[in-house]
Amino acid sequence: MSVTAPQGFEAAGVAAGLKSTGKPDVAVVVNRGPRKVGAAVFTSNRAKANPIIWSQQVILDRTVEAIVLNSGGANCFTGSFGFQTTHQTAEKAAELLGVAAGDILVCSTGLIGTGDEAFRAKVLDGTEQAIAALSADGGDDAAHAIMTTDSVAKTALVEREGWSIGGMAKGAGMLAPGLATMLVVITTDADLEAIEADTALRAATGKTFDRLDSDGCMSTNDQVTLLVSGASGVKPDLEEFTAALTELSDQLAAQLQGDAEGASHDITIRVANAVTEQDAVEVGRSVARNNLFKAAIFGNDPNWGRVLAAIGTTSAQFDPYDVDVWMNGVRVCSKGGPDRPREDVDLAPRATDLLIDLQVGDAEATIRTNDLTHDYVHENSAYSS
Amino acid sequence: MSVTAPQGFEAAGVAAGLKSTGKPDVAVVVNRGPRKVGAAVFTSNRAKANPIIWSQQVILDRTVEAIVLNSGGANCFTGSFGFQTTHQTAEKAAELLGVAAGDILVCSTGLIGTGDEAFRAKVLDGTEQAIAALSADGGDDAAHAIMTTDSVAKTALVEREGWSIGGMAKGAGMLAPGLATMLVVITTDADLEAIEADTALRAATGKTFDRLDSDGCMSTNDQVTLLVSGASGVKPDLEEFTAALTELSDQLAAQLQGDAEGASHDITIRVANAVTEQDAVEVGRSVARNNLFKAAIFGNDPNWGRVLAAIGTTSAQFDPYDVDVWMNGVRVCSKGGPDRPREDVDLAPRATDLLIDLQVGDAEATIRTNDLTHDYVHENSAYSS
Repeated sequence: MSVTAPQGFEAAGVAAGLKSTGKPDVAVVVNRGPRKVGAAVFTSNRAKANPIIWSQQVILDRTVEAIVLNSGGANCFTGSFGFQTTHQTAEKAAELLGVAAGDILVCSTGLIGTGDEAFRAKVLDGTEQAIAALSADGGDDAAHAIMTTDSVAKTALVEREGWSIGGMAKGAGMLAPGLATMLVVITTDADLEAIEADTALRAATGKTFDRLDSDGCMSTNDQVTLLVSGASGVKPDLEEFTAALTELSDQLAAQLQGDAEGASHDITIRVANAVTEQDAVEVGRSVARNNLFKAAIFGNDPNWGRVLAAIGTTSAQFDPYDVDVWMNGVRVCSKGGPDRPREDVDLAPRATDLLIDLQVGDAEATIRTNDLTHDYVHENSAYSS
Repeated sequence: MSVTAPQGFEAAGVAAGLKSTGKPDVAVVVNRGPRKVGAAVFTSNRAKANPIIWSQQVILDRTVEAIVLNSGGANCFTGSFGFQTTHQTAEKAAELLGVAAGDILVCSTGLIGTGDEAFRAKVLDGTEQAIAALSADGGDDAAHAIMTTDSVAKTALVEREGWSIGGMAKGAGMLAPGLATMLVVITTDADLEAIEADTALRAATGKTFDRLDSDGCMSTNDQVTLLVSGASGVKPDLEEFTAALTELSDQLAAQLQGDAEGASHDITIRVANAVTEQDAVEVGRSVARNNLFKAAIFGNDPNWGRVLAAIGTTSAQFDPYDVDVWMNGVRVCSKGGPDRPREDVDLAPRATDLLIDLQVGDAEATIRTNDLTHDYVHENSAYSS
């Protein structure tokens, strides 16, 4: 169901030949209203793909009629020709839907540098096909059409009294903050003002997608979009809506983590008792990006020394001789020295919990990451992406 | 010859049982003068090993009689017992050499958390053995005794009219800035004031060891030490000495890069035409730490999109549509778009040249790194280190 679970949305996913496998590669999600509110957050990478440059303009007036997404090519670093392709995609969709091109968001994902004439023709053709195929239960088709190296389609649904939030996501590598490399479309039939939608989206992504750091690499094409139809007629409290949106975003973030390229462990790094939340995030991210720690977890080695070495590179407040480190419930380091023997830690399960207790304050944060494996290297060396 | 090539130094390397293989694991280098000048730079990791904490105090008066180094255990996060081990090591060496313990530097390398009573006994015994074995041609033995996962001993010698600089290094992973994970001892018989030695060492390491970033991971035990005997009686110009020291440091850095754990490519990243040298370093380091780029090079894939995506995460001044990227002499990206076909690039050789032309200024910097390989993951997951 995903993005078509809430009332007021139609979607479709079709195969336009962008993927060499012949699988679906163009998706469209349309907001039938009555509200046409959109909010979005974008990659903080300064090398931005053409669809990002376009969508950042579209979102300024917070009115969005539809979003067109393609896999099979990032349309990034494809120059003015590539930007025209994005522009023409929006115009094609607008013409067929009878709305303004300036209210059409566009997202692309795939190999950087892909965006030639053949690409343009296929994207435009796919947009036309998808709009012809729009339906109120097209959410799953859309979720499949945005997949790249994803092994499964990622969707989520959170239901509340009289309204709901649906979402779809793609992403399986290059997951890092500022966003992860992901495309996410979230829809809701809750009745929200544009400013409320924007506030809720920034709060939810800040605690979820922004704290997923699979491999430290930041994409050029990331976008998380929230579309609001208001079709339920229910006006939830902003705090209640933000909580529900955070819950849904966390579910999608966990699915992205669980499908990260080549990973054999999903590592949840909880940093507790920091002086500030910012310190906790910095410490968690530093450990999440430490290749030696990540390789050790792949090898089922509870190597707390590598954790402390990573903490030492941060500017967070801490005393090395007051830090405790727990792995899967076993305290392997207490006050900066060895504690329980490494043999006591069972790292065989995919789910891995790392708890870093800084013992200097009461702020905390959780960062999700993965291990560094042979398969990660294989997937990112054997194929261009 | 390494550290005993310059006049005024003796060295030794012995096996004290710290390495399970029975190979040499304790080294001593002694300065016989007439000068007893020492200069050192240390890891910027805030989680510092006990020998670092000790050596930072010793170096304050810029007088150093000798340096004791062990492999087979990092003596990091081993608490006050570990610090006492370092202290006793210095006292043992001082007693046997008839000098003050406060003039003895100590370095350790190996697994973090290793530093129990057995470790202490072996280090003290090894120190005694090594001092008994000191000789004017013991440099190579010392270079072997500091190896950990290194596949070869690393030494270098730069000779000038009447004076010379010799060096030994160990390091094969966890190579990152602020220093790489390395222990380096450099000796010279040039006649330098303490302040000159310090100035030259900081200048040389800033351009060489600090720009070696194998895997982005910063060690807790790094130390680069320069010992000055003045035995040649020749007082070189500071600029001339700094140039020679930089040349020697660059040779050792290249050897460290060439022996990085599991690497199949030595990647030299030259960032040209940046506005400032700092921008050039930031850009080069960002690319050097990008796992996706590093995995692509392992796969012989000249993936310039991953280079631009990495540049985009920096704060350097650049325009994505003015950047050129060259790999092994082939311009694969010009003005932020595709140029020569990827098939034209031959990435089979181990030596890999990446040139990033930012086209916004005239500053430049070179960063050395390695690719991300199956063997890197294997070596860092299968064994604790």
